[in-house]
Amino acid sequence: MADPRFFKRKGPFSVQEIADLTGAELVNAPDPSRRFDDVSPLQNADASILSFFDNRKYLDAFVSSSAGGCFVRPEFVDRAPADMVLFTTSDPYRAYAKAATAYYPFDEANGVVSPHAVVADTARIGKGVQIDAGAVIGGNCEIGDGCIIASNAVIGEGVVIGAGSKIGAGATISHCLIGNLCLIYPGARIGQDGFGFAMGPQGHLKVPQLGRVVIGNDVEVGANSTIDRGAGPDTVIGNGCRIDNLVQIGHNVELGMGCVIVSQVGISGSTKLGNFVVAAGQAGITGHLEIGDGAKIAAQSGVMKNIGAGETVGGSPAVPVMEYHKQTVALSRLIRKKK
Amino acid sequence: MADPRFFKRKGPFSVQEIADLTGAELVNAPDPSRRFDDVSPLQNADASILSFFDNRKYLDAFVSSSAGGCFVRPEFVDRAPADMVLFTTSDPYRAYAKAATAYYPFDEANGVVSPHAVVADTARIGKGVQIDAGAVIGGNCEIGDGCIIASNAVIGEGVVIGAGSKIGAGATISHCLIGNLCLIYPGARIGQDGFGFAMGPQGHLKVPQLGRVVIGNDVEVGANSTIDRGAGPDTVIGNGCRIDNLVQIGHNVELGMGCVIVSQVGISGSTKLGNFVVAAGQAGITGHLEIGDGAKIAAQSGVMKNIGAGETVGGSPAVPVMEYHKQTVALSRLIRKKK
Amino acid sequence: MADPRFFKRKGPFSVQEIADLTGAELVNAPDPSRRFDDVSPLQNADASILSFFDNRKYLDAFVSSSAGGCFVRPEFVDRAPADMVLFTTSDPYRAYAKAATAYYPFDEANGVVSPHAVVADTARIGKGVQIDAGAVIGGNCEIGDGCIIASNAVIGEGVVIGAGSKIGAGATISHCLIGNLCLIYPGARIGQDGFGFAMGPQGHLKVPQLGRVVIGNDVEVGANSTIDRGAGPDTVIGNGCRIDNLVQIGHNVELGMGCVIVSQVGISGSTKLGNFVVAAGQAGITGHLEIGDGAKIAAQSGVMKNIGAGETVGGSPAVPVMEYHKQTVALSRLIRKKK
Repeated sequence: MADPRFFKRKGPFSVQEIADLTGAELVNAPDPSRRFDDVSPLQNADASILSFFDNRKYLDAFVSSSAGGCFVRPEFVDRAPADMVLFTTSDPYRAYAKAATAYYPFDEANGVVSPHAVVADTARIGKGVQIDAGAVIGGNCEIGDGCIIASNAVIGEGVVIGAGSKIGAGATISHCLIGNLCLIYPGARIGQDGFGFAMGPQGHLKVPQLGRVVIGNDVEVGANSTIDRGAGPDTVIGNGCRIDNLVQIGHNVELGMGCVIVSQVGISGSTKLGNFVVAAGQAGITGHLEIGDGAKIAAQSGVMKNIGAGETVGGSPAVPVMEYHKQTVALSRLIRKKK
Repeated sequence: MADPRFFKRKGPFSVQEIADLTGAELVNAPDPSRRFDDVSPLQNADASILSFFDNRKYLDAFVSSSAGGCFVRPEFVDRAPADMVLFTTSDPYRAYAKAATAYYPFDEANGVVSPHAVVADTARIGKGVQIDAGAVIGGNCEIGDGCIIASNAVIGEGVVIGAGSKIGAGATISHCLIGNLCLIYPGARIGQDGFGFAMGPQGHLKVPQLGRVVIGNDVEVGANSTIDRGAGPDTVIGNGCRIDNLVQIGHNVELGMGCVIVSQVGISGSTKLGNFVVAAGQAGITGHLEIGDGAKIAAQSGVMKNIGAGETVGGSPAVPVMEYHKQTVALSRLIRKKK
Repeated sequence: MADPRFFKRKGPFSVQEIADLTGAELVNAPDPSRRFDDVSPLQNADASILSFFDNRKYLDAFVSSSAGGCFVRPEFVDRAPADMVLFTTSDPYRAYAKAATAYYPFDEANGVVSPHAVVADTARIGKGVQIDAGAVIGGNCEIGDGCIIASNAVIGEGVVIGAGSKIGAGATISHCLIGNLCLIYPGARIGQDGFGFAMGPQGHLKVPQLGRVVIGNDVEVGANSTIDRGAGPDTVIGNGCRIDNLVQIGHNVELGMGCVIVSQVGISGSTKLGNFVVAAGQAGITGHLEIGDGAKIAAQSGVMKNIGAGETVGGSPAVPVMEYHKQTVALSRLIRKKK
C-alpha cells in the first residue's frame, strides 16, 4: 500500500460501489458487497486489492495475478484467474484512475491562510482557499474558491486564478489568467517577459512584452517549466493541456485543447498548435509555425516546417515518421556496405 | 491595448516627441503635435496607434493597416497607406522598442524594503532599492542603487549586485558578482557548485569549486536557467549577453560580449565563446572548446569542435551549415532511390 | 586565491600533513615540515601553492609550472621542474580533491534555526541542524543531525532526510526519503506527481501517483533538476549518484549506484539504469528500458532500446558508438561524392 506518511487512504469500497463509480460492467462478481481495501499494479496485488490490465505487454502478469479485482477489456475475460472479480470496460486505465482517485483523493484546500503567508490587502481571496507559509500574493490578485497556493509560491500583481486550481511550492506567476482546476507544479515560471529584443552590434535592445499568459481550465504545467507572456498578443494554453517538467514555451505560442507536451520540449515564439497535439520528450519546434490538430511529434525531433493535421513526424530536421525510419535504416545499411 | 491589470501606460506622445526619442525621420507628418495613444502590432492598430513594419513577411499587413503611425525603412514609404504618419529609420524594430518603452516603461524600484524580507545586518543596501516580501539577503552583500530584489529571491553571502539590476522572484544567487542593469529572471540559479568530482569505482569524490560567477552589465539570464560557478577560474558572462530560459552554463565557461543563447542550450565546462555568438534552441556545446566571434550555432546542434569566427554550423555532430543542409538532402535522396 | 568574500581558507598544511591526508608518496621533498598556503590549478600557481597534474593535455603547463607542490602520477616524476615537491599517486585528481577540501572544507551546519523559518511542531529536527530564513518544514518530517536546509526551501509533510544532507535554497521536496550526506541543489524539484494520466479525446484523466522518491546516501541532485515520484512503485536513486542541472527523471525510474547523469538529460518513466551508468549532456532515454551496468551514453543520444552492460552508444536513435561514428563519416562522404 502507499506509504501512509504521504498518502491518506479512503475506503474500503464495495464491488458495486466501484462499478457504479467507474461505469464498468461486472463479470464473475458473485458478491457485489465484497470490499477491496486498496488499489495497486497487478504484480503486487493480493485478494484484497483492486488492479487493472491495460497494456497487453503485461498479459502474463494478469494471467497469474492474485489481485482480488481487476479492470479489463471484455476480450480478456477468458484469460482471467478463476477467482478474480472482473470490471470490464473499453478503457481500463481510465476506470482505474477513477477508482484510485476514490481511494486516494487529490488534496483539497483546507481553507487556512497561514500567518506566515503575505497577502496584499487588495487581493480578493475566494472561499476555502489554502495559502501556505511563505506564499506571497500581490495586489489586486483574484484567487478562486478552493485554490491551494503552496509554500513560497509568488503570485504577481493582478493575476487571476480560477476555482479549485493549485499552485505548487516555489512557483512564480505574473501577467497571467489561469482557469479552473489547473495544476501548476513546483518551480514553474509563468508570465515573465519573452525573449524579445532588437538585436544589433550596438547592443540588444529590450522590447516591452505587453501580452499575457492565458491558461484554460484543467491544465497542468510541470515542475520547473517556463511559459513566457506574449509580446503583444497573448500566450495561450487551451483547456485540458498537459505540460510536463522542464518545458519551454515561448512568447505568443498558442496551444489548442488537450495537447500533451512531454518533458524538455521547447516551443519557439509565435508557433500555434491545434487540438490534441502530442510532442514527445526533448522535441524542439521552431517559431512562427502551424501544427495541425492531432499531429504527433517524436522525441528529439526538430520541427522546422508546418505539420498538417493528423501527421506524425520524427528526426531533426523533422520529416514524416515513415521517411525518418527509412532514413535510419538507409544510414545503417550504408555503413554495412563499407565493411 | 495592454491589459491594465498588468501594465501602466504613459503618454500620449506627439509625433515630434516620438521622432526625437527614436531619431527617426518624419515623412507624411503634416501635424507634428498629433498624438498617439498607444503602441501595437500592425494587425490590431487603428488611427490612434503607433506601430512598426520590420519583417518583409508582413508587407500585406503594412499595406492594408489602419495604424496612425508606423516605423518603417525608407524603401517602403511608397507602399504605405495614404493617411499613415511614417517614421523612417534603418532599424524600425529598434525604434519601436524605444517608443514602446516610453509608453510602457520597465519597472523601477519603489525604494521599499518589505518588512517580510530578511536582510542581514551586514548587507550594504543602496539608495532606492526595492526588496519584496520573502526575499533573503545574506551577510556582507552589496546591493546597488535602484535594484529590485523580487519576492522569495535568495542572495547569498557576499554577493555583489550593480545599480539598477533586477533579481526575479524565487531566483537564487551565490558566489557571484553581477554588473549594472542586469535582469535575472525568476528561478534562475547562479553560482552553485559546478559538476566537478574525481570519478571512480570507489565513489565520485567532490572537488571544491573555488571560483565565482562574474556577470557584466546589461545581461539577461532567463527563467530557471543555471550558471555554475568556476572550479578555480571564474565563470564569466560578458556585457550585453542575452540568455534565455532553461539554459545550462557549466563551470569556467566564458561568454564574450553580446552573446545570444536561446532556450534549453547547454554549454559544458571550460568552453569559451567570443563576442556576439548566437546559439539557437537546444544546441549543445561540449567542454573545453573555443567558439569564435560572431559564430552562429543552429538549433539542436551538437558542437564537438572549435568554431572559427563568423562560421555557422548545424547538425549533431555539428558541421558547417552548408554541409549540414547537403547531408539532409543526401539522406532524403537516399531513401527515395530505394523505393 | 579564492575570493575571501565567498570562501574561508584553512591551513597552511605541511608537506607531511598533505601526504598523510591523501595517501600520496613523497618524492623530492627534503623538508616535510614545509607548508603550502593554498591550492590552485597549475597555470596560476607559485611556490606557496599546491597543485595537480592529471590530464596529459596539460603536460606543458606541468613542465613549466612554478607550483611549490604537485600531485602527479609516478611516470611523470622525471618531467617535473627541479624545485617542485611531488606527491605521487595513481589518481592525482582525487588526491587533489582531498587536499582542496582540507583548505576549503564544505559548509557545515551552524546549528541555528532561523526565527524566519517555519517549522511544523510535529517535525523531528536532529542535532545541530541549520534551517535558514524562509525555509518551510512540514508536519512529521524527520531532518537528520547536521543537515542544512537553505533559505526558502520547502520540505513537504512526512519527508525524511538523513544526517549531514544539504537542501539548497528554493528547492522543494515532497513524498521523498533522502539518505545521508546528500546535496540537493537550489531549485531542484523532487517528489511531485509523475506525468501520469489516461489519455483520451474526452480529456486526459489524472491517475493518482502513489509511490515515493527514495534517494540513497551521498547523492547529488543538480540545480533545477526534477525527479517525479513513482506511480505505484517508487522512483529510486542509488547511493553515490551524481545528477547535474536541469535533468528530468520520470516516475518509477531506478538508478543503480554511482550513476553520472549530465545536464539536461531526460530519463522517461519506468526505465532502469544499472550501476555506474554515465549519460552525457542532453541525452534522452525513452521509457521502460533496461540500461546495463557501466553503460555509457553519448551526449544528445536518443536511446530507444535496452543497452547491455559496458556498452557505449551514440546518435539518435542511439546505436553502438562505433557504428555511430561510421554513420557520421559515411554521411560526410556522401555529400563529398556529389560535388
